[in-house]
Amino acid sequence: MCRWMAYTGSPLLVEDLLYAPANSLVVQSLHARLGVEPTNGDGFGLGWYDRDGPGLFRSTEPAWNDRNLRELAGHVRSPVVLAHVRASTGTPVQQTNCHPFRHGRWLWMHNGAIAAFRAVKRDLVLAVDPELFPDIEGSTDSELFFHLALTFGLEEDPPAAVARAAGLIEELGRRQGEPFPLQMTVATTDGETLWAFRYSSEGRSRSLFHSADISTLRAQYPDNPVLHRLSDDARLVVSEPLGELQGAWREVPESTCVVVRHGSEELRPFVPTVLEAAG
Amino acid sequence: MCRWMAYTGSPLLVEDLLYAPANSLVVQSLHARLGVEPTNGDGFGLGWYDRDGPGLFRSTEPAWNDRNLRELAGHVRSPVVLAHVRASTGTPVQQTNCHPFRHGRWLWMHNGAIAAFRAVKRDLVLAVDPELFPDIEGSTDSELFFHLALTFGLEEDPPAAVARAAGLIEELGRRQGEPFPLQMTVATTDGETLWAFRYSSEGRSRSLFHSADISTLRAQYPDNPVLHRLSDDARLVVSEPLGELQGAWREVPESTCVVVRHGSEELRPFVPTVLEAAG
Amino acid sequence: MCRWMAYTGSPLLVEDLLYAPANSLVVQSLHARLGVEPTNGDGFGLGWYDRDGPGLFRSTEPAWNDRNLRELAGHVRSPVVLAHVRASTGTPVQQTNCHPFRHGRWLWMHNGAIAAFRAVKRDLVLAVDPELFPDIEGSTDSELFFHLALTFGLEEDPPAAVARAAGLIEELGRRQGEPFPLQMTVATTDGETLWAFRYSSEGRSRSLFHSADISTLRAQYPDNPVLHRLSDDARLVVSEPLGELQGAWREVPESTCVVVRHGSEELRPFVPTVLEAAG
Amino acid sequence: MCRWMAYTGSPLLVEDLLYAPANSLVVQSLHARLGVEPTNGDGFGLGWYDRDGPGLFRSTEPAWNDRNLRELAGHVRSPVVLAHVRASTGTPVQQTNCHPFRHGRWLWMHNGAIAAFRAVKRDLVLAVDPELFPDIEGSTDSELFFHLALTFGLEEDPPAAVARAAGLIEELGRRQGEPFPLQMTVATTDGETLWAFRYSSEGRSRSLFHSADISTLRAQYPDNPVLHRLSDDARLVVSEPLGELQGAWREVPESTCVVVRHGSEELRPFVPTVLEAAG
Repeated sequence: MCRWMAYTGSPLLVEDLLYAPANSLVVQSLHARLGVEPTNGDGFGLGWYDRDGPGLFRSTEPAWNDRNLRELAGHVRSPVVLAHVRASTGTPVQQTNCHPFRHGRWLWMHNGAIAAFRAVKRDLVLAVDPELFPDIEGSTDSELFFHLALTFGLEEDPPAAVARAAGLIEELGRRQGEPFPLQMTVATTDGETLWAFRYSSEGRSRSLFHSADISTLRAQYPDNPVLHRLSDDARLVVSEPLGELQGAWREVPESTCVVVRHGSEELRPFVPTVLEAAG
Repeated sequence: MCRWMAYTGSPLLVEDLLYAPANSLVVQSLHARLGVEPTNGDGFGLGWYDRDGPGLFRSTEPAWNDRNLRELAGHVRSPVVLAHVRASTGTPVQQTNCHPFRHGRWLWMHNGAIAAFRAVKRDLVLAVDPELFPDIEGSTDSELFFHLALTFGLEEDPPAAVARAAGLIEELGRRQGEPFPLQMTVATTDGETLWAFRYSSEGRSRSLFHSADISTLRAQYPDNPVLHRLSDDARLVVSEPLGELQGAWREVPESTCVVVRHGSEELRPFVPTVLEAAG
Repeated sequence: MCRWMAYTGSPLLVEDLLYAPANSLVVQSLHARLGVEPTNGDGFGLGWYDRDGPGLFRSTEPAWNDRNLRELAGHVRSPVVLAHVRASTGTPVQQTNCHPFRHGRWLWMHNGAIAAFRAVKRDLVLAVDPELFPDIEGSTDSELFFHLALTFGLEEDPPAAVARAAGLIEELGRRQGEPFPLQMTVATTDGETLWAFRYSSEGRSRSLFHSADISTLRAQYPDNPVLHRLSDDARLVVSEPLGELQGAWREVPESTCVVVRHGSEELRPFVPTVLEAAG
Repeated sequence: MCRWMAYTGSPLLVEDLLYAPANSLVVQSLHARLGVEPTNGDGFGLGWYDRDGPGLFRSTEPAWNDRNLRELAGHVRSPVVLAHVRASTGTPVQQTNCHPFRHGRWLWMHNGAIAAFRAVKRDLVLAVDPELFPDIEGSTDSELFFHLALTFGLEEDPPAAVARAAGLIEELGRRQGEPFPLQMTVATTDGETLWAFRYSSEGRSRSLFHSADISTLRAQYPDNPVLHRLSDDARLVVSEPLGELQGAWREVPESTCVVVRHGSEELRPFVPTVLEAAG
């Protein structure tokens, strides 16, 4: 599948997130530890925010040997950074299939899959707001999921919109006889708040972790230089821990939405909404 | 827009088609003479037939400096060759947007555009046979046109199917207030027969030419080496003449379908079918 | 050949340089007016300076359809920007052959060619400082020219070092019977001062222009919005004018070195140094 | 490092070599079992012979998701096939660094490395025949090794030429204080005879295997369909076995040259030649 990481906090050099950690996302692109596949070499993407809004750098090359990513990471500083390395589940390796996806100020990335995607794709496409439909550029389940969430009000109430999109995916999948239609860890942000979701129809979701309180960690590890570069309000949500520091990472429970805003995180239950008159 | 060429005849080295002529398609990728744009550098594709069926080589690089295309052209011999150089009209430069497109034994390539594509795309997608829908991999109007033609029976009666697809495109476009919804030169083949179409809603279509009878040409130019490498049944349909040989090329008239089979070509009028209950 | 532009002044959004002007470098990648070739589609490069030193973004795709370049240009602000679009003179289209080239804090880009390059390459390679030799990553004459200039003291006295490198190239070329061994417009910078050169052995050099005084222009065109975004110390050196504004551009004379520093430019004669004991 | 395979025998569809086997080279690109690195995703290459001489298809994408490689493999039949998947040891991922390399009718591919390459590269470059020097297009140790072997007479006496090239590499490396200057498995062919080498200065070489006699295997496994598609004279030399068939693969001993010609293989000792007056 894929691996991703999301950061919010004081502006940080992307390099400190993508290359410095022992098990950084670039390391995970070649040797993921907790993923379904160790190799995530089917393209990557970087999203960040500055005063010009969200920027994107996406490429079909493996992240581990992309020189342009290395350059950018050494020059871009941002308070909100999303990054994703992809292991295709069948759709082509092309830039328009690389995460994060963008709509206005919103970014979205996904690890997992819509099961029986060939069978349900058309009905899902029909459920997308016709005004949004022409914006779909690639062919992934992930981008379609994003546009369903946008259709259901992502920009107003993200958890509710994602719940409705997930509910529709589950309902249409089950109609096709698929017992477990959805696997998802998702991160989405408007550049201010970060919402991260961990859920799967079968209750055995892809791994997801969030960082512990930085000030506590810093007290615990007074000599760790990385922790001193992070501000108190720094928060990370990641597919897998970026290092071995004891106490630094907490597993996000099954069926949970994490809301990160101004250095505080809140964990809420996440349940797909059962739609009454879908399709 | 784009430029393309289609060949049927005795097996020929692709190099003799793509590189040898003075105004070959690879030359046209950099310096097209009759196209809307002189540069067709947004990817290319090569399709050919052998005993294993149709083969495809498509890439996002400009054709003029693609070393792999040069290599293949020096090794592949085939009795049916299609090649296309692309100038994007807005959709992304990615392999899945490169022509020719393939379905089973069929290849398809297109020069032109569906006008107001953003406005009509959803309705056109809905008109595609749901069984075929998941096979659409890219985001071009051209690939969608192909799947509409397949929906309307391309494999049974190509001129009728293309006429119905063109009719639908025109009807949906006009509903959106678009006076000239379709520009097309299209080539499609099952590896036996080649059908080529020249049509546009406004009656000012992109250029298209077919080759004259080779045996006549050979008598006329007894010293021309290229003509001696071509068999009597060799036929070419091209966006623009591959060279300056007087009498070698005949313009395909407006609103015409050219059917090439076993070394003979037939020109028939082509008119989109007005659909009664479309959409 | 190629086209390039170099900017120094107040920090400017790269977009305002690469996309906004009527005849911007991205426009020139598809339709250069004064170049040997209208199309410069064999890769591109962007170099810029910030507090982390010089950054590079180089790619083999044509600049006109590169989405990542568009993104970066909308987010990177810098007081020193170099950009280059390439038309290969034979060497492969690969990232390591894209300009600008970098060494420490120095960037270098070149339009033109070393004539009879195959014949003189080995002797030129031998003249490169053995310590610098392993840093040569690509196969262009341009990168080799840069390493010759570095060998001859580019970091201490740029005009003298470039003159010695040019002198060596001319001497070795003439030994091979090449009457006009060198064509060059070159830009090089340490992030503080910009040196630009226009020279050719035959005295018919590639085009090069520098911008006129901005405050004068602003007085002359009080309603032009672009001029109001530029600071008084802004200076551009370009292969061809970025627009039609009367009086905005001055041709750099043949055999000239332009030195731009803190908003003032100085034009000096440039003559290759005849080496006594070369080779 | 890398993984490679070489085939000689009756013309075979490349697909049967690259995709059909359980541990095919494409599988090894993602999950090598015996390599230094499990992932060989830094480009790949395919070389084959037909009546037009040797053809090459090389690309920087990972082999496992390259659609053009999949297409070609389904259409190219050849009596001599070389294929290579790369894991870069530092040099850039670019087409000119992908194996096999070609010179006239000769192909060459390499797994391993020249140790301390930065330190010895210049002296090795100087040792290349000046006539051959400008043909070096990329920056790898492998391509340079090939040109050294060509310099020392590869086209006349391959084992002697490779021994002299290896001897020079060892001598120059040791002068730089490198105790183990060379790791190599190499395959080279003129399209008639295949020479494969396994050697390393430290006597712990990368893995290499050759296939057992096909007619014996076929008698042993009368129901195996793959064996029935192979002719009696089919021979494979591979970095690692393509499957689990007992008795099908024999390890090539350390310091050995395998010569395969007309369905018979000969194993000879391989020792680098100590040069008297090198450098």
